[in-house]
Amino acid sequence: MSSNGQKIMEWSERLAQYSEPHWAEKNQLTCTYLTPAHLQTAREIKSLMNEAGFDEVSTDAVGNIVGVYRAASSSSSSGSSIADATATVKTLMTGSHYDTVRNGGKYDGRLGILIPIACVAELVRQQRRLSYDFEVVCFSEEEGQRFRATFLASGALTGDFDPSWLDQQDAEGVTMRSAMQAAGLPGDLTEIIKLKRDPEKYIGFVEAHIEQGPVLFEGGIALGVVTSINAGVRAICKVTGTAAHAGTTPMTMREDALLAAAEISLMAEKRALQDEGSVATVGQMQVPGGSINVIPGECLFSLDMRAPFDGQRDALVADILAQAQSIASRRGVKFECTETMRASAAPSNLKLQERWERAVKSVGQPVFKLNSGAGHDAMKLHTIMPQAMLFVRGGNRGISHNPMEIISQEDATLATQAFMALLDDIETHPFS
Amino acid sequence: MSSNGQKIMEWSERLAQYSEPHWAEKNQLTCTYLTPAHLQTAREIKSLMNEAGFDEVSTDAVGNIVGVYRAASSSSSSGSSIADATATVKTLMTGSHYDTVRNGGKYDGRLGILIPIACVAELVRQQRRLSYDFEVVCFSEEEGQRFRATFLASGALTGDFDPSWLDQQDAEGVTMRSAMQAAGLPGDLTEIIKLKRDPEKYIGFVEAHIEQGPVLFEGGIALGVVTSINAGVRAICKVTGTAAHAGTTPMTMREDALLAAAEISLMAEKRALQDEGSVATVGQMQVPGGSINVIPGECLFSLDMRAPFDGQRDALVADILAQAQSIASRRGVKFECTETMRASAAPSNLKLQERWERAVKSVGQPVFKLNSGAGHDAMKLHTIMPQAMLFVRGGNRGISHNPMEIISQEDATLATQAFMALLDDIETHPFS
Repeated sequence: MSSNGQKIMEWSERLAQYSEPHWAEKNQLTCTYLTPAHLQTAREIKSLMNEAGFDEVSTDAVGNIVGVYRAASSSSSSGSSIADATATVKTLMTGSHYDTVRNGGKYDGRLGILIPIACVAELVRQQRRLSYDFEVVCFSEEEGQRFRATFLASGALTGDFDPSWLDQQDAEGVTMRSAMQAAGLPGDLTEIIKLKRDPEKYIGFVEAHIEQGPVLFEGGIALGVVTSINAGVRAICKVTGTAAHAGTTPMTMREDALLAAAEISLMAEKRALQDEGSVATVGQMQVPGGSINVIPGECLFSLDMRAPFDGQRDALVADILAQAQSIASRRGVKFECTETMRASAAPSNLKLQERWERAVKSVGQPVFKLNSGAGHDAMKLHTIMPQAMLFVRGGNRGISHNPMEIISQEDATLATQAFMALLDDIETHPFS
Repeated sequence: MSSNGQKIMEWSERLAQYSEPHWAEKNQLTCTYLTPAHLQTAREIKSLMNEAGFDEVSTDAVGNIVGVYRAASSSSSSGSSIADATATVKTLMTGSHYDTVRNGGKYDGRLGILIPIACVAELVRQQRRLSYDFEVVCFSEEEGQRFRATFLASGALTGDFDPSWLDQQDAEGVTMRSAMQAAGLPGDLTEIIKLKRDPEKYIGFVEAHIEQGPVLFEGGIALGVVTSINAGVRAICKVTGTAAHAGTTPMTMREDALLAAAEISLMAEKRALQDEGSVATVGQMQVPGGSINVIPGECLFSLDMRAPFDGQRDALVADILAQAQSIASRRGVKFECTETMRASAAPSNLKLQERWERAVKSVGQPVFKLNSGAGHDAMKLHTIMPQAMLFVRGGNRGISHNPMEIISQEDATLATQAFMALLDDIETHPFS
């Protein structure tokens, strides 16, 4: 089993060949929805799946690569489609995305594809079949880079594909429908709607993913069991004060928009620190047309607030916005806030999460639980079936969305062992 | 005397006709060095001076309009040049600038030209001459808008004209030398050097100016006696932290560049508030390439720090920079600071300041003293002769560098009366 980590490292490099611009030229990996690099990546994944010994490997109407490894007792170990799965044999779904952010890393998404492929290769090598169908979905889109349609690929499986997306244009004016048709996909809503899964046929969804944060790295821990994917709210804020001469306006007569924004940023930090697992970030700030010698009359900034549970998120957001109003009022400036995104928390299914805990323990690793600050495909599947995620430690202090994203071969091996243990756990302790 | 305010209001409108774009079209006043609007303004000022009855009105080698009203005992009440002034008859110099910032106000600079012109008109009407020569210099450049050569006009009188400025280009690639020659000026350094004044021949320099701040307006006071023009330091600052995922990086594991900058901004405010007359302003702030969901890895901001005296300014700057370092160090980020400007304070000559105090009192106004947060031509003259300034209240909470800059006719009348009183005071109580 120790060679699985090495395989995953090699496969990651194989997939990272396809980038625009090319990795070797620019040391960059950019693979956005249905671009040439993305289509080549899809072909390479299909080859990997076929080499591993999946029974079926196909591309669906949104470009997901779907591989199925049939159960021993499945109606047929080849030839039957997913929809035909018998009532007695259920399916475990796993997967993650193969698209990347611009100038992203090699493991974000892809690790959650390559680990289950390594598991199927291992099962084939052992000439073993499971008591359930094992479906690996390589999602074509999660990052929302080319189109403003984040999670379109996993969304298609949960019935959340927004029909208006087909007419949406990328930066070059190409509609999603044209991009799909150019890639050999139908570009047809009827076909996309058919992708929706029937939850009754599924055990649930599991996903392995690089942590994309520093917690496991700082703790010296290889694997983490995810308890919840955070709820989040994003907002764009504006403080309006009065621009005035920086030399001639006494400190006590100012209505400085920037200082109010600064105070709000620090208050948001302090408030988030009071919670277990909450985060609040001001990622953007600017004084439009600001001059070195003019008191800022306006300041724009962003707020990103997340917490493991919806209630905790709501309290965080309410407190921050109320305190922002009182800071603005005390400083004689106006505070306005427009919410641009609101996502519910996706707490792990406890029974599925406990299977990950047993799996991690069985490979000799400590059980470390953490919540996920980032969104994942599991968030979408959460809306229709039980889900639970496994995190794998990132090197370089967990940096992600960056070419410096890295994992170790040893951790890739451990993650694959834990995934195999999860498959065994479901085999040994079937859901009642 | 009550019509002087009205005259000044009318003359201000006359000068404001010349703008690019035109005031009437865009409600904008922009008059930068040696542009067509600037040359038309200069011609209009010469007409005003000739109408008022100055003995000599000329344009010097940097475009200053110089008007002289000769003393009763002057070697000649017409024809003799400034440099020929006899040892026994000294000169009082006054003046201010007629250029503006882009989209500026009608009174910034120009009020300090129009008040003494009104005084000369009044002296002529009374058929009075003073016991000293009265020289009104209308400075062609103070705002540093077209060329990076702020105070070039008053600098020429103090020997601070930088020869390299002649080769400096404006945004269209026109050198200052070409601009001067196109305007009919020699564009020749030798001629500019000759403009340097001999301090031995001068009583000193006085300047009336709109306050450009809210202090007189908020205090309900028409006139203010300036005690000092603030010392200042400007700096560009950079905080370097670590960009990381806003969702996945716990609050306790962040090296957020923006939060350090926010804390530094609030600390600078608090530190400036501890002093009488100090100000500190962060006018610009940005997170280069910042995203709503990324912890800022870098933050750039400006610092403008001013105080009435050099020592107070130095302590302010030293404290702010030291505290900035300790904030950065506590937050695990790097703070760097590059000084871009350092100007010494110009405290008023106490005897000349007392003359303004007596003048203000003599017109029935309370003596209110304040320091100037903005720089003025008097700052340059300060380097070679005694100087003291009078501030006139601005309406609209003292807004300046803005088309909303305004003064009342009543205040213009009071300022002219006070200026006449100052001229009388120097007449009655000559310098020993």
